[in-house]
Amino acid sequence: MTRPAGSAPYTVACIQFEPHIGAREANLDAMEARIRVAQSKGASLVVLPELADSGYVFEGPEELAALAAPVPDGETARRLCALAEELGIHIVSGVAEAAEGRFYNSAMLCGPDGYIGGYRKLHLWDRETLIFTPGDLGLPVFDTPLGRIGMAICYDGWFPETFRLLADAGAEVVCIPTNWVPMPGQHPKDSAMSNVLHMAAAHCNGLYIACADRVGTERGQPFIGQSLIVDPGGFAVAGPAGWQEEAILYAEIDPATVASTRQLNEHNNILGDRRTDLYG
Amino acid sequence: MTRPAGSAPYTVACIQFEPHIGAREANLDAMEARIRVAQSKGASLVVLPELADSGYVFEGPEELAALAAPVPDGETARRLCALAEELGIHIVSGVAEAAEGRFYNSAMLCGPDGYIGGYRKLHLWDRETLIFTPGDLGLPVFDTPLGRIGMAICYDGWFPETFRLLADAGAEVVCIPTNWVPMPGQHPKDSAMSNVLHMAAAHCNGLYIACADRVGTERGQPFIGQSLIVDPGGFAVAGPAGWQEEAILYAEIDPATVASTRQLNEHNNILGDRRTDLYG
Repeated sequence: MTRPAGSAPYTVACIQFEPHIGAREANLDAMEARIRVAQSKGASLVVLPELADSGYVFEGPEELAALAAPVPDGETARRLCALAEELGIHIVSGVAEAAEGRFYNSAMLCGPDGYIGGYRKLHLWDRETLIFTPGDLGLPVFDTPLGRIGMAICYDGWFPETFRLLADAGAEVVCIPTNWVPMPGQHPKDSAMSNVLHMAAAHCNGLYIACADRVGTERGQPFIGQSLIVDPGGFAVAGPAGWQEEAILYAEIDPATVASTRQLNEHNNILGDRRTDLYG
Repeated sequence: MTRPAGSAPYTVACIQFEPHIGAREANLDAMEARIRVAQSKGASLVVLPELADSGYVFEGPEELAALAAPVPDGETARRLCALAEELGIHIVSGVAEAAEGRFYNSAMLCGPDGYIGGYRKLHLWDRETLIFTPGDLGLPVFDTPLGRIGMAICYDGWFPETFRLLADAGAEVVCIPTNWVPMPGQHPKDSAMSNVLHMAAAHCNGLYIACADRVGTERGQPFIGQSLIVDPGGFAVAGPAGWQEEAILYAEIDPATVASTRQLNEHNNILGDRRTDLYG
């Protein structure tokens, strides 16, 4: 692949906020206000949490059905696309998607020229399995002026294959809308295993990874915040944010450095050294 | 697979020490002394660093040839097997192996009944590529009274596939003899990315992972210590040890908990949730 013209360092922002279940209009208003702040501080790419428009803890399929909408023709997508066009930025957000009678826990990417593409969560968590359909779009990577951008959502990050597939598809920047919950035995304020997983994934694949988590407790389910942006060496360049307060993380990233980061020394390339004779 | 009779909680120890290049006899004496200490404190499984018998920074193939020996018929293997038999424990150690005119950066497992099996490093680091042959034994897992034990070495841990293959082969405990060096831009005392990688691998696969690193600086190459034992949730149960001092880490582990740890909730199993329709 050739590098898109105009690729240069830029600022990515992760918006950590508290969506409210069922309040799509208010959630979109909150997202818009924070996106405007991030853009005013120089962000060219803004990442929002999983299911940022709908909230997370659905009482059942009827509640989800009332909130999910088509992408890109539904309200959430239309509004985010218009905002990206107006502000001249790229936006990645989680969105409750309805398509052909099914529901997907999805993410979407839009930019100054409108809608770019979508992703549907491959690995569903807990009771999501009862109301969402597992993703059927693979792990697409989109060529943009900000580099090659992929998306994954929350529990997808527990599977190293997610990042392998994205890296092999050419990703340089992976945006993670998420709703991280405490792992068994963990308190929401404990240092997040999710951060360990994404540092490791960034390091092992030479990827920027920008994770935007939500905060708050919804119908008894606490979330852990701790949004994080890591560089292709696996080290945090912004965050982790606090576990319960809203925040916007900012980091300057440069996708042009990805290739050189993957070359660890004269003899080792973190992707090239895979023993493909033994595993796929 | 069925659980071996007698499996129960036990103590694993990781010995962090400083081997010296070329001084095999002195290195074996140092290993034996520390193994005896660990056994006297209750350890049933003792893990030693990569190339613990030979040292690491070889001037070239001639120096390696003079130090490498067959496994299990060479001096290192015979001495460790005899010690395991005498003390009634299991030992995993790195060893410089010679076989059919080739050299392998290997690990070996022995127990109260003698030699059990070996492993040859699959992913060679930096100038190792000039003098060692890449491993050709895959990632074997050995059924023992202490659970199902696998081995990997240092840079192998940078490849998530290493732990996937071990978990799929039934591993419950993975022993990592290692000689971790600083990553680009890192000081030996900096918090180790290697620890992040092994916490993530343990969590994503539900594995105990016991990493025994070396310390010291050899021919200008610093090592970072920070040996670590993590549980199947990915959390440290011993260590990280310091970055420059010798240490023995101890942790009580219970391989019988591995299966339940992998079941994250009613709907999710960390291994079972893989999208095998999309990746191998």
